[in-house]
Amino acid sequence: MIARTANHSSVQLQSPFWSRYQELVRETVLPYQYDILNDRVPGVEPSGAIRNFRIAAGLESGTFTGMVFQDSDVAKWLEAVGHALKTKRDPTLEQMADDVIDLVVAAQQPDGYLNTYFTIQEPGKRFTNLMDCHELYCAGHMMEAAVSYYEATGKRKLLEAMCRFADLIADTFGPGEGQIHGYDGHQEIELALVKLYGATGEKRYLDLARYFLDARGTEPNFFLQEWEQRGGKSFWWPWMKEPDLAYHQAHKPVREQDVAVGHAVRAMYMYTAMADVAKLTGDDTLAHACERLWEDVTRRQMYITGAVGSTHQGEAFTCDYDLPNETAYAETCASVGLIFFAKRMLDLAPRAEYADVMERALYNTVIGSMAQDGKHYCYVNPLEIWPRANEANPDRRHVRPTRQAWFGCACCPPNVARLLMSLGDYVYTWDEARRTLYVHLHIGSDMAWHMDGGRVQVEQRSDLPWQGRTTLRFRCPDGSRRFSLAVRIPSWCAGDSVIRLNGEQLPLADVRMEHGYAVLERAFADGDEIALELPMRARFVMAHPELRAASGMVAIERGPLVYCVEEADNGPNLAALSVDLDAPLAEVPCRIAGVDAIALACDAYRRDEAAFGDGALYRPATEEARREHRVKIRAIPYFLWGNRGQGEMRVWLRWR
Amino acid sequence: MIARTANHSSVQLQSPFWSRYQELVRETVLPYQYDILNDRVPGVEPSGAIRNFRIAAGLESGTFTGMVFQDSDVAKWLEAVGHALKTKRDPTLEQMADDVIDLVVAAQQPDGYLNTYFTIQEPGKRFTNLMDCHELYCAGHMMEAAVSYYEATGKRKLLEAMCRFADLIADTFGPGEGQIHGYDGHQEIELALVKLYGATGEKRYLDLARYFLDARGTEPNFFLQEWEQRGGKSFWWPWMKEPDLAYHQAHKPVREQDVAVGHAVRAMYMYTAMADVAKLTGDDTLAHACERLWEDVTRRQMYITGAVGSTHQGEAFTCDYDLPNETAYAETCASVGLIFFAKRMLDLAPRAEYADVMERALYNTVIGSMAQDGKHYCYVNPLEIWPRANEANPDRRHVRPTRQAWFGCACCPPNVARLLMSLGDYVYTWDEARRTLYVHLHIGSDMAWHMDGGRVQVEQRSDLPWQGRTTLRFRCPDGSRRFSLAVRIPSWCAGDSVIRLNGEQLPLADVRMEHGYAVLERAFADGDEIALELPMRARFVMAHPELRAASGMVAIERGPLVYCVEEADNGPNLAALSVDLDAPLAEVPCRIAGVDAIALACDAYRRDEAAFGDGALYRPATEEARREHRVKIRAIPYFLWGNRGQGEMRVWLRWR
Repeated sequence: MIARTANHSSVQLQSPFWSRYQELVRETVLPYQYDILNDRVPGVEPSGAIRNFRIAAGLESGTFTGMVFQDSDVAKWLEAVGHALKTKRDPTLEQMADDVIDLVVAAQQPDGYLNTYFTIQEPGKRFTNLMDCHELYCAGHMMEAAVSYYEATGKRKLLEAMCRFADLIADTFGPGEGQIHGYDGHQEIELALVKLYGATGEKRYLDLARYFLDARGTEPNFFLQEWEQRGGKSFWWPWMKEPDLAYHQAHKPVREQDVAVGHAVRAMYMYTAMADVAKLTGDDTLAHACERLWEDVTRRQMYITGAVGSTHQGEAFTCDYDLPNETAYAETCASVGLIFFAKRMLDLAPRAEYADVMERALYNTVIGSMAQDGKHYCYVNPLEIWPRANEANPDRRHVRPTRQAWFGCACCPPNVARLLMSLGDYVYTWDEARRTLYVHLHIGSDMAWHMDGGRVQVEQRSDLPWQGRTTLRFRCPDGSRRFSLAVRIPSWCAGDSVIRLNGEQLPLADVRMEHGYAVLERAFADGDEIALELPMRARFVMAHPELRAASGMVAIERGPLVYCVEEADNGPNLAALSVDLDAPLAEVPCRIAGVDAIALACDAYRRDEAAFGDGALYRPATEEARREHRVKIRAIPYFLWGNRGQGEMRVWLRWR
Repeated sequence: MIARTANHSSVQLQSPFWSRYQELVRETVLPYQYDILNDRVPGVEPSGAIRNFRIAAGLESGTFTGMVFQDSDVAKWLEAVGHALKTKRDPTLEQMADDVIDLVVAAQQPDGYLNTYFTIQEPGKRFTNLMDCHELYCAGHMMEAAVSYYEATGKRKLLEAMCRFADLIADTFGPGEGQIHGYDGHQEIELALVKLYGATGEKRYLDLARYFLDARGTEPNFFLQEWEQRGGKSFWWPWMKEPDLAYHQAHKPVREQDVAVGHAVRAMYMYTAMADVAKLTGDDTLAHACERLWEDVTRRQMYITGAVGSTHQGEAFTCDYDLPNETAYAETCASVGLIFFAKRMLDLAPRAEYADVMERALYNTVIGSMAQDGKHYCYVNPLEIWPRANEANPDRRHVRPTRQAWFGCACCPPNVARLLMSLGDYVYTWDEARRTLYVHLHIGSDMAWHMDGGRVQVEQRSDLPWQGRTTLRFRCPDGSRRFSLAVRIPSWCAGDSVIRLNGEQLPLADVRMEHGYAVLERAFADGDEIALELPMRARFVMAHPELRAASGMVAIERGPLVYCVEEADNGPNLAALSVDLDAPLAEVPCRIAGVDAIALACDAYRRDEAAFGDGALYRPATEEARREHRVKIRAIPYFLWGNRGQGEMRVWLRWR
């Protein structure tokens, strides 16, 4: 499916950095989340997610627990287990999943319908509040789980169950008479139906995905009609006077959208599906809308950490260049969604900028959202922490100064788990038509594909994110093969990198650059090795002048990693620091939360509180008032923030 | 009362700058607000405030309109009319007020109770929800109105009515058996009772004020008891699980408080009453609490414009040094309250820092809150406006980019009116015991007092805020008098000022400085003139290094005025500007909204968007990326912001 001729399971990570994350997810996160879903973790608010299925299946009595979309936590966990089993057989995990699947299928209604909230709590009300109640969203996640688990194990039970549900949905929704001319309040099923199509070849599912996209935001507006039909009441907000169509990206037809608005996760999932459908149906207007939205998100509404969503209220985009640090929302799921979207944009057209963003979101927001113990998470990924104000100022209270054990709305942790366990899917594209192997990410991994009646394998090994050396060794047991290798040269080292073929540096003239990829077309023989040196010079980075919240400030990056400064290294009041852009950034080994990392040290300045004095809050800007003294500061990789006790943290630093 | 031997009505403003404001209030604001209160302004949501009194008086049928504290809008208007009539007789205005007073008194219940909400809407529920329902708050405002109107006109009708109500309250509340051991949710009655004591000499009212302060925050906590008694339900917020005691400054006894917390207006009114009672009863522990709270507010929690309240949520203080610009609340009423508090602190001990803050709040937030037409107001006084984000980002939506015609919660406009019409009360203190005339504010005005069996008058003339020349001419028709003149030397010109006595410069050694006041003790003869030159050099000002939101930035001040930059003068994206602290600030005459003002121009820099390019949101901080070009910028007095169309505005500017 989707130009991804290489089979999923054929990518196996071989990376000291990333394999560790996959192990953590496999050995800690998935069992921990399983316990959470089963209400077995003391001190964590009961999820009720599994219990809901037991009740819906008639195995237990009781009422529904949790959010109306609680089912999706189970689905995302199942999907993650599927991805995990693709990377490594694990009978215990598989048994857990089989048990869950039995339960899920037992909760399915005779006509294929599956949703524990409506089954338990509001029987007879199904599909009456699409805008608020996430039925198709939960359906979508279970479809993704079904596909993942089928691909991993070949087991068809959940897949078939979800096809039955998809068939019911296809019968229920559409432009035909007697059908609901509607769509979900939280996009997700669109991209899931594309996956279901990929797994089954059933075009009906692709058509339904396209229908949901086509219908969205058209007149008469479905959400407004539905709102009136159910008496003008919101499921969530009693004070709501009318639906916020933009929140759901239903304010205009999707093909006419060019600015990212509304709930960021909804937007990301929708754009992902738009790119999927554009690719599979050759729909250029849809592809162009994706390009415009991509550009808006990544060039005007994305934090430097690859996070999106500037406000807590509606977990939403606000407007171009409005990226406040203290009050950022920057939800983990939205960055996971941005990675989905980026991958689909690569499928539409291989341009390094898509992979650059994917890498930015992955190495910073996504892995930063999970503690190294696999049991504590960020929902909101802060750009700036000042614990006292995060506590005392309600405008900042959604930004928690430490990672939390779980959340009432627990969308993020399983989203990270499923992304990490399927990370192999994001590394390569084998494009059969162009006879080109694209290497998007420098993540150590083995990948095999078939061409010209033979098997080719690439063994990538990489020292990222700590050092920039990456090698690609080719195995051609069936003889050499002529094809193009297109390796992304990350934007952070453009112009500096060195490429060697079997140890010999390639003259730059021999390397064609195409949209940020270095392309080598040749006959690859068994044992051929391409080595890349991607220089990792630490650097100060600036934001576009329109990004007001970063004016006068710089961030520090090294390779794909964004850095931050913490109170643990630099004392309190990080705002009093300023850096000299001419000062060298020295690499210093450090170990944080068990990770051997590289910190960066540089000379800087700190405002002199004693010179300013305590007598007044404001005083003339005399030499004395502005006095600074020299200090040495240390920055650490952003993803490791918050591991050394509660304290201030910031990504952006003043410069002078 | 309160060491203010000089009678209110003996201060008459004679100031081109301030008399204009008083005329505006007298001729435009008060009639406009009267029309508003009477629901006669098209396009403005009906206030219902007068109508509520008509209904409560049985003159009309209907239901209550507006906020539960709607009565206070009428009271504050009446108080302002009283102050206005002290400055100038106006039979039309007096007739309006008499009519309103007749109506108010007609709505009073036989036992003295007065509150239209409870009379109309919840009869029988009086004094059952002190925490939420503002009964004593409304009572306090009507007491202030009664005193003001009595002082202005000698008419006792409202005064007597409010004494009857005060008597009922004194019977109802107190430590005795059968009394409510409670206090109001919104402090106000405490300071009003002190005024009522001043006007009547009835010590019972002072005792009651003190009781309310003494009882507040003690154990067992009254609000918690009341909350349980009424079934644990908030009048305002259905989701509230328990009272927020700090919001009401009822989290601990007032004498133990040392950090300003909770709702800023409540805090200011309470601190004002604490200082009043401390002064009148010689209560040192109360006075010390006032000093601690003053220091916390003005040295750690006050915006440079004299605004307080860092968050919209709860209209509240947050924590020390947390003064965000984009999301500031900075309510007008809170700055009015800060001026009340400052005056009472001056009464406790004349220190120039109190008057400095009074001046800061007055010349910036308070007059900035009202448009020059007297018909548009700020509730929130922004430190930074970016109209697109103020609209699109809900976290900033409470900050309106233009002044509004009125508010559903209309506390601020009449608060400004009553302050401006009583401004004379804030200029001087004649301290009989010290035989000292304190001149706190350099506001042109005539003030007379009696000493040693004769009358003395001072005629102050001042060019503030535009130029620093102030003269004080003494009239001693009954012969010269020996006393001390203590003139505040504002902090913005300390050390630079020149004092002349009858044209001759005084050697500095002859001028004693006491807590920021220049003290001249001598026999003043008729015609003696003291002239002051208070240099008005425009200057860049910095914030304390702990004030993170102003790090790397400066504000511009000249004399008592804070300046701001606007899009109208400087184009959009003011965050892209930075100033050179060594560049001279040139004075440029300008005329804005009919005010002849002095703008300030200086050389500055603007980040070069073209050099940065549109291709990326973030890029390495190369020379090119950080390129700036020289520009000339113009700053205008903050109080004149927002008069030239909607656009960006900011007070704090980056410096280099």
